[in-house]
Amino acid sequence: MHICEFQEMMQRLYFRRDSKRGTEGTYDWLVDEVKELGEALHVGDKVALENEFADVIAWLASLANVVGVDLEKTALVKYNDRCPKCGHSPCQCTL
Amino acid sequence: MHICEFQEMMQRLYFRRDSKRGTEGTYDWLVDEVKELGEALHVGDKVALENEFADVIAWLASLANVVGVDLEKTALVKYNDRCPKCGHSPCQCTL
Repeated sequence: MHICEFQEMMQRLYFRRDSKRGTEGTYDWLVDEVKELGEALHVGDKVALENEFADVIAWLASLANVVGVDLEKTALVKYNDRCPKCGHSPCQCTL
Repeated sequence: MHICEFQEMMQRLYFRRDSKRGTEGTYDWLVDEVKELGEALHVGDKVALENEFADVIAWLASLANVVGVDLEKTALVKYNDRCPKCGHSPCQCTL
């Protein structure tokens, strides 16, 4: 599924609730999901870990919907098969 | 671009560095990028905001590469055109 299609699915499923909750509330949910992902990384349960990855990308797409950002477009503007810092593929940054 | 293609691009560009940095270091970078996204939300500069959305999905894909998770597959297992909690589209959860 394209990134933009996933974002559109999140819009269909959740935009009514996301827009009522607003930018800050939706960002706070994203932060919570990232924390849960961190906990799952420590526990090492693959099913729980996959579940948290799903939630993080879902809430990232929800937040993008709330603020009107095209997640796929903006990702490919910055990361277009080259490292945006050094211009190489693979990245050859020294830092 | 498919979510899996974006993850594969991140693998080509950054896996050598990501795998050296490891799970915790890559997760810490993701957390930092989420913080920067939060700051950009407050500032309200659309270009900076788009840049931070790009970085968050990029680092999420990098982290998925480090731990061997298929981001697209796991997202669609949980979010398959229905809310995973209430089973409806759009979501009709009361919480």
